[in-house]
Amino acid sequence: MDAAAAALLDARFAAAKEASRKLARATSAEKNAALATIAAQLRAAAPRIVAANAEDLARGRAEGLSAGLLDRLTLTTARIEAIAEAVGEVIALADPVGQSVAGRTLPNGVRIDQIRVPLGVVGAIYEARPNVTIDIAVLALKSGNAVVLRGGTSAEHSNRVIIQVLRDGLAAAGLPADCVQTVDDYGRAGARHLMGARGYVDVLIPRGSAALIRTVVSEAHVPVIETGAGVVHMFLDESAPLDWAVELVHNAKVQRPSVCNALETLLVHQDAAERLLPAVFERLRGSGVTIHADERVRAYHPDTVAATLEDWETEYLSLDLSVAIVDSLDGALAHIRRYSTGHTESIVTNDLASAERFLAEVDAAAVMVNASTRFADGGEFGFGAEVGISTQKLHARGPMGLSELTSTKWIVRGNGHVRH
Amino acid sequence: MDAAAAALLDARFAAAKEASRKLARATSAEKNAALATIAAQLRAAAPRIVAANAEDLARGRAEGLSAGLLDRLTLTTARIEAIAEAVGEVIALADPVGQSVAGRTLPNGVRIDQIRVPLGVVGAIYEARPNVTIDIAVLALKSGNAVVLRGGTSAEHSNRVIIQVLRDGLAAAGLPADCVQTVDDYGRAGARHLMGARGYVDVLIPRGSAALIRTVVSEAHVPVIETGAGVVHMFLDESAPLDWAVELVHNAKVQRPSVCNALETLLVHQDAAERLLPAVFERLRGSGVTIHADERVRAYHPDTVAATLEDWETEYLSLDLSVAIVDSLDGALAHIRRYSTGHTESIVTNDLASAERFLAEVDAAAVMVNASTRFADGGEFGFGAEVGISTQKLHARGPMGLSELTSTKWIVRGNGHVRH
Repeated sequence: MDAAAAALLDARFAAAKEASRKLARATSAEKNAALATIAAQLRAAAPRIVAANAEDLARGRAEGLSAGLLDRLTLTTARIEAIAEAVGEVIALADPVGQSVAGRTLPNGVRIDQIRVPLGVVGAIYEARPNVTIDIAVLALKSGNAVVLRGGTSAEHSNRVIIQVLRDGLAAAGLPADCVQTVDDYGRAGARHLMGARGYVDVLIPRGSAALIRTVVSEAHVPVIETGAGVVHMFLDESAPLDWAVELVHNAKVQRPSVCNALETLLVHQDAAERLLPAVFERLRGSGVTIHADERVRAYHPDTVAATLEDWETEYLSLDLSVAIVDSLDGALAHIRRYSTGHTESIVTNDLASAERFLAEVDAAAVMVNASTRFADGGEFGFGAEVGISTQKLHARGPMGLSELTSTKWIVRGNGHVRH
Repeated sequence: MDAAAAALLDARFAAAKEASRKLARATSAEKNAALATIAAQLRAAAPRIVAANAEDLARGRAEGLSAGLLDRLTLTTARIEAIAEAVGEVIALADPVGQSVAGRTLPNGVRIDQIRVPLGVVGAIYEARPNVTIDIAVLALKSGNAVVLRGGTSAEHSNRVIIQVLRDGLAAAGLPADCVQTVDDYGRAGARHLMGARGYVDVLIPRGSAALIRTVVSEAHVPVIETGAGVVHMFLDESAPLDWAVELVHNAKVQRPSVCNALETLLVHQDAAERLLPAVFERLRGSGVTIHADERVRAYHPDTVAATLEDWETEYLSLDLSVAIVDSLDGALAHIRRYSTGHTESIVTNDLASAERFLAEVDAAAVMVNASTRFADGGEFGFGAEVGISTQKLHARGPMGLSELTSTKWIVRGNGHVRH
């Protein structure tokens, strides 16, 4: 990127930072009014958004995007209405800013309070789905943060219109339009510049494919919250009840295979394989699941695809499932330790000791006993909105709600107190 | 660094990771027993540690280290006794691991609990003071984390013996010696390798000079918690009571000038300068403070050093203070916005509106009204131990206690629950 372009983007980042200071002091009522304006203007702008989206879809078709990707890229009037309604749900959420996290009066009389404050400027790098533009911007604004957005090139026409709607909505409601910025017009170079925007951008959240997230994590010089990639395991212990095994595996794999908390690898205790696998496989096949099996599974079930080494580290996001037989709980723990992405891991068991060992020893954002991995979700956890699912250990781990878009500051009140 | 050395260090990091899994499951009693063993062995090893320290001191003198740095490098039997006593204080602290952060039963009967777990492997890069080796290792072990240490070259003999004592103490107490690792024997190349140890090291904490912290923040590929650098301001508002102004400025600057929460820049409202500055300066000069003043201050007090632009961004850590007159609260806020390192900022005022604006608008880890900046401290805040003071917004902000060396995981318990 040449110096002039870099300076222009830096000016946008600085404007976001400056605007974030005003937004940080806005009341919940002011922020909610702006979000309501944005929702109304999204509805009003639906024809323009759909027209811009048609350009993206035409290019996508010309470039041979898959039907699935084209569907994710598509915005219709009905989808825009649903997005506007989702903005309404965010309005209804409690504002985390100003919440007291901790507080006490020290023995000397000094009062200390730890209060939630916005992070400042949130950067978001994501792909394909233009609805994410609204989703992440609205969550950021609700929690008092400015945003700098980088959507995928495939959605650039849609995103351009949507970002204008967001900015106009803010301005109409008396908040700074500069709270929403984009680097889309600079493409990949813009994304790289955003990843290096230390001092302007307080946190960068990548949302999308494992490859996208890897790139951001390794290249960014601003703090990143790593989200998403889920090579999710379920272990059927020796004592796993048959009906739970069948229904939990099926639900975890099939209920929504394209998301990060969907099951990707099934591990089965060797002493339970004969008892459980026939019914588990029958139920899965009834829903069109392709089974990639190791040699031990194939000894029982030759009518499966032979798994390769690559299968164990693959997040299929499709109706595919890799299945392995392990010697014991230890074998399952070792497999998970090796291949887990730290997202969600689950055991099905009726043995208390196995359950407790699994919960204690598996190192992941969510560890489950006798529950579908699909429960690892901000909505299911009652957060009301989900910023993403963090697979890192710092700041936030697991489903992130609005609070995870905040920091804190300590407010200290004395009466001329000095330290002795 | 050649491939063989890199492989050797990676093996140490992997050993730390493996050991951290055992340590994560150790009970508080087991960890406390190990810390008690370490304290006892530190006392027993005092002669060996003092002898090794003498080598470091001899080299330091030969290399012309300042008296201050030599003092910080020095370990005596009495200082080792004090360090062993400090280990006892950490034993007495509550163990954060296993603490419940949040928990509820979902409407469908699924139980979710967010539980504190160790981060895993904590890397520490620090300078000069060999007591930090014990300090950071003991805090990490108490919170269930393994550590990889990189102390300064100037303390390498002392640190070598101390690290052996730590490892021996762990082993004698039945915990893995590999929970404590060092890269000191590879010098700066070892430090660089540690900064790149993604997948092994969960967080890196630099402790030391602003230059050290800058280097780690910009070069590390593992997550960093930025600590320490404090260009700390105090603003004397128009309404500031004289006695508070005098005592708060003096305490914040003089009580311990070498630490990060000590005052570095004093800002004074133009309408209060004549009333306040003579007594403030008299009290400071009585303690040997050198005043670096802007032109407006020097108009009243020509007997000061003329401040240069550099003064406003300098963390003196000495008996020096930069002083400027500002037009108003807005002028103070603008100066702080420009030069603050986000550590601690304070206002002295009797005006409620000024106090509330200052608290709301200043973006720092700790923001104070009518209190000495020296209160921004884990000990003062009642944390019992201080890992450092975070000046970043993610994960931890402000004084960090043991909890800030932990992450969380979600434990989910169902009874065959599937998602609908």
